[in-house]
Amino acid sequence: MIKLTAKDIANKHHIYRINLINSCSGYKSANLIGTKSEDGFENVAVFSSVTHFGSNPPLLGFVLRPTTVLRNTYKNLKETGFYTINHIHESIISEAHHTSAKYPGDVSEFTKTCLESEYKSDFYAPFVNNCPIQIAMKYEEEYPIKANDTILVIGSVQEIYIKDELLSNDGFIDLAKGKVVTINGLDGYAATNLIDRFEYQRPKKDALKESS
Amino acid sequence: MIKLTAKDIANKHHIYRINLINSCSGYKSANLIGTKSEDGFENVAVFSSVTHFGSNPPLLGFVLRPTTVLRNTYKNLKETGFYTINHIHESIISEAHHTSAKYPGDVSEFTKTCLESEYKSDFYAPFVNNCPIQIAMKYEEEYPIKANDTILVIGSVQEIYIKDELLSNDGFIDLAKGKVVTINGLDGYAATNLIDRFEYQRPKKDALKESS
Repeated sequence: MIKLTAKDIANKHHIYRINLINSCSGYKSANLIGTKSEDGFENVAVFSSVTHFGSNPPLLGFVLRPTTVLRNTYKNLKETGFYTINHIHESIISEAHHTSAKYPGDVSEFTKTCLESEYKSDFYAPFVNNCPIQIAMKYEEEYPIKANDTILVIGSVQEIYIKDELLSNDGFIDLAKGKVVTINGLDGYAATNLIDRFEYQRPKKDALKESS
Repeated sequence: MIKLTAKDIANKHHIYRINLINSCSGYKSANLIGTKSEDGFENVAVFSSVTHFGSNPPLLGFVLRPTTVLRNTYKNLKETGFYTINHIHESIISEAHHTSAKYPGDVSEFTKTCLESEYKSDFYAPFVNNCPIQIAMKYEEEYPIKANDTILVIGSVQEIYIKDELLSNDGFIDLAKGKVVTINGLDGYAATNLIDRFEYQRPKKDALKESS
């Protein structure tokens, strides 16, 4: 195996380091976050850090990089309190990835890509049309991360839209059936196949005997 | 599309709700976190919330559920300051998933599964033998999440071990080549195929003209 120490990593070229550290955490979620500013400018941007925080209440978090450069997503969701999370599927990965380009705040990525905005149920922020899963989110709280000036944003699920055939009777959403992709590193997109689902795990019987 | 509102979700059976909300965020990382208590008891547990927070310094976060029940991983990493992150590959998914069973603190999951602990470079916490990527982590800080009493733990990368053939010249780790899996929901494990990598994105030229 190749061994890299903290010192080795610090001494690498910064492109090498961002590729390495972005891919060392494992697979990531592949989402488009949709927002609209108070004065009506739409924004959509790719994020790979959406993480489950809890089911009751239903809470999801995501990480924003430092606000030293303008972050339209952050500005809009702070102004309005709302955003959407939309799942990236195989047929839009190239367009979705292009939303990482730094456009000014008054240029909507919806006009620069084939992605289309969609409004429903009077929700303020735009969804991304045709995504197999679309989630309406309300901003709840944020945590500035001291170690590197990123921000963890926590939001609550207001509405979920799911393509009918993806939702199982027990609430499980089959992402592979929806051709939802997963992100490897900064720029790798991977297709998936569900191998198996496992039951709720209980200790093997002899364990409790041993420890008592 | 099926529409579920916050109220619909709140009214569902709790198993339905945890399946739904755990799978609605998208694909998750599939990791085993290894720790050892001050008095020498090893622990290993499956986590699906390891998230990239930054590359310089190299920081990864993960989420722990409330500490109202004993969490061995949390207790050990707080006591000792160290833990390991090990990637779950296809041949160990069943054993890895079994580490979610609640064993008492003096019963090591290493003795209850085929997973083997491995020590190297005098690092205090155990790695999981044969994992294609193994990361030595140092606890840095934590954030109690008010909205639901979970804890975000932030750690810094001390050492990374990577199977030789997975590491590209530009620092990208090819997780699919290592048969690293990704988690769908609470209990679904999926195999992956890398579709493509994309270049760093810049705005399309006409955008800047429009906004100036």
